[in-house]
Amino acid sequence: QQTVTLINVFEVPEERYEETVAMWEAARDVMKAQPGYIATSLHTALDEGATFRLVNIAEWESPAHFQAAAKALKEAETPKVEGLKFHPMLYRMLRQDPEN
Amino acid sequence: QQTVTLINVFEVPEERYEETVAMWEAARDVMKAQPGYIATSLHTALDEGATFRLVNIAEWESPAHFQAAAKALKEAETPKVEGLKFHPMLYRMLRQDPEN
Repeated sequence: QQTVTLINVFEVPEERYEETVAMWEAARDVMKAQPGYIATSLHTALDEGATFRLVNIAEWESPAHFQAAAKALKEAETPKVEGLKFHPMLYRMLRQDPEN
Repeated sequence: QQTVTLINVFEVPEERYEETVAMWEAARDVMKAQPGYIATSLHTALDEGATFRLVNIAEWESPAHFQAAAKALKEAETPKVEGLKFHPMLYRMLRQDPEN
């Protein structure tokens, strides 16, 4: 099966930035223990006023592995951040340059 | 200077998917010739109904390199896609697992 990329863009209420990073760390600790986890990185916008100030990009061995991990994350009850909006979606690579 | 990551999420009108991929390829050909370009990849959502059906992730040597390239792209007049919405933003890495 093909590895998949989870891209999750966060709309972060201004005063909730630190809280969102802490929530991400708690979720990462749950996810990295799940089968099929490969890697993850959290990116922060250079412009603090950006619509999507934080973006998480993670690699998983398959969609099924990710779905199971997402379920485990729900059960882990990591902290919720008031007013935080996010858009998690699974992707596959369509084009790449340079092609490896 | 620290390398930066350009993350651009596309809201793709349903019937404009192929056209958007072709536009991305034309833009990639301009950008990859610009100083400071490192790499780029285009990701497509597994769920064709996804809000952000296409996401471009590119690496650049610095913000200044990217700004100059973006200017060159505007002058190159690559094809426009009717109704396409996109949100390009520069990011830096905040957290990474596993840490390399």
